[in-house]
Amino acid sequence: MTEKKRTTIVLFSGDYDKAMAAYIIANGAAAYDHEVTIFHTFWGLNALRKDEHVEVKKGFMEKMFGKMMPRGAEKLGLSKMQFAGFGPKMIKGVMKKHNAMSLEQLIDMAQEQDVKLVACTMTMDLLGLHKDELLENIEYAGVAAYLADAEDGNVNLFI
Amino acid sequence: MTEKKRTTIVLFSGDYDKAMAAYIIANGAAAYDHEVTIFHTFWGLNALRKDEHVEVKKGFMEKMFGKMMPRGAEKLGLSKMQFAGFGPKMIKGVMKKHNAMSLEQLIDMAQEQDVKLVACTMTMDLLGLHKDELLENIEYAGVAAYLADAEDGNVNLFI
Amino acid sequence: MTEKKRTTIVLFSGDYDKAMAAYIIANGAAAYDHEVTIFHTFWGLNALRKDEHVEVKKGFMEKMFGKMMPRGAEKLGLSKMQFAGFGPKMIKGVMKKHNAMSLEQLIDMAQEQDVKLVACTMTMDLLGLHKDELLENIEYAGVAAYLADAEDGNVNLFI
Repeated sequence: MTEKKRTTIVLFSGDYDKAMAAYIIANGAAAYDHEVTIFHTFWGLNALRKDEHVEVKKGFMEKMFGKMMPRGAEKLGLSKMQFAGFGPKMIKGVMKKHNAMSLEQLIDMAQEQDVKLVACTMTMDLLGLHKDELLENIEYAGVAAYLADAEDGNVNLFI
Repeated sequence: MTEKKRTTIVLFSGDYDKAMAAYIIANGAAAYDHEVTIFHTFWGLNALRKDEHVEVKKGFMEKMFGKMMPRGAEKLGLSKMQFAGFGPKMIKGVMKKHNAMSLEQLIDMAQEQDVKLVACTMTMDLLGLHKDELLENIEYAGVAAYLADAEDGNVNLFI
Repeated sequence: MTEKKRTTIVLFSGDYDKAMAAYIIANGAAAYDHEVTIFHTFWGLNALRKDEHVEVKKGFMEKMFGKMMPRGAEKLGLSKMQFAGFGPKMIKGVMKKHNAMSLEQLIDMAQEQDVKLVACTMTMDLLGLHKDELLENIEYAGVAAYLADAEDGNVNLFI
């Protein structure tokens, strides 16, 4: 019996286009029967936020971060050609025209394909994000768990 | 007979400095007898654009993207210290002074060393880029081909 | 006897948050007994700069770069939410509150754990950075040395 191949992605970026690339690679790898993990850290956590406001008790700084950071996949900006918010609209326009999946749909698909979505607990703490504010059916872990997945990996990426 | 080592780079970024780093690593790996692939996706495709205008039929959005995105390696901006276009001039100034190769020359060298340059067909579609607008002697493929290269790779990078 | 696992990180970015991520992964990997190398290239070199001005003879362009680039780990900006310098203050505020280590402390810890810190000589040349301007006890090497480390690596990341 051969072991399964493994793809492990650190999603650090909170940019819509970079998160798309991460999820496209992850879904592709899952389709090719890899064990896939996306470890969301720093701004990458924003892709996992629910899109509604969730009432949780926070300190002042954490409240500020919560307000300033985008709430969920479809609120993320672009890494390039942001153009005061016009860039993301254009990209979403052409994506719709070409029947490409939105980031939200790519995340759903990843969950259906058993891609392990992990939220970095250290950064959650730092940015003041609570479990209640993030999507259901994700895991919570730190850098040690990431390394345990990555060290036997075939494809390791930092995005 | 030992198998060749393999380096596979996803070039997502359209920044001059990041593309330089990708091509310097790729050329180094090729010199050390690795099989090397650079998979150009999203803004990374701009490094492969011809520097002249190519007449192709496009929709309105695709025309807009075509106009706004830099046409070819030497038109790319920097990831840092852009300074309204002054940064790239400075970098190119010091590169010339130190006899460092330009990105264009690095791409030529990669092609001479048989580095496989791949354009991501999904993103070409999305951004409305046609084969006629890209350099000669490159390949066209999707995420599946990337994964096939990457899963047996020694060095896998996302840049 | 089993061989040690190996983690090799290219730190290209000069952003505080990305450098933090690189050093957190590096310190984690070192704690799990990996051999760890961080190869600092382009803007990533700024994390290794001493925080005081060092008198060295430079050309005009090199002097300009020296002045414009941040001097040392604690001067770096953020990749996101820069907010005219307010973002880094906020991040450092919450880091202090949560007793998280600063980048400077993470670099010290990495040196204590024998993480190999390498400065890319080609970029030093290009940006006009001298050894006297960088931290003590680091190594100097080029892309060939990086590839030699990376090609047998378990975790290879470009940050």
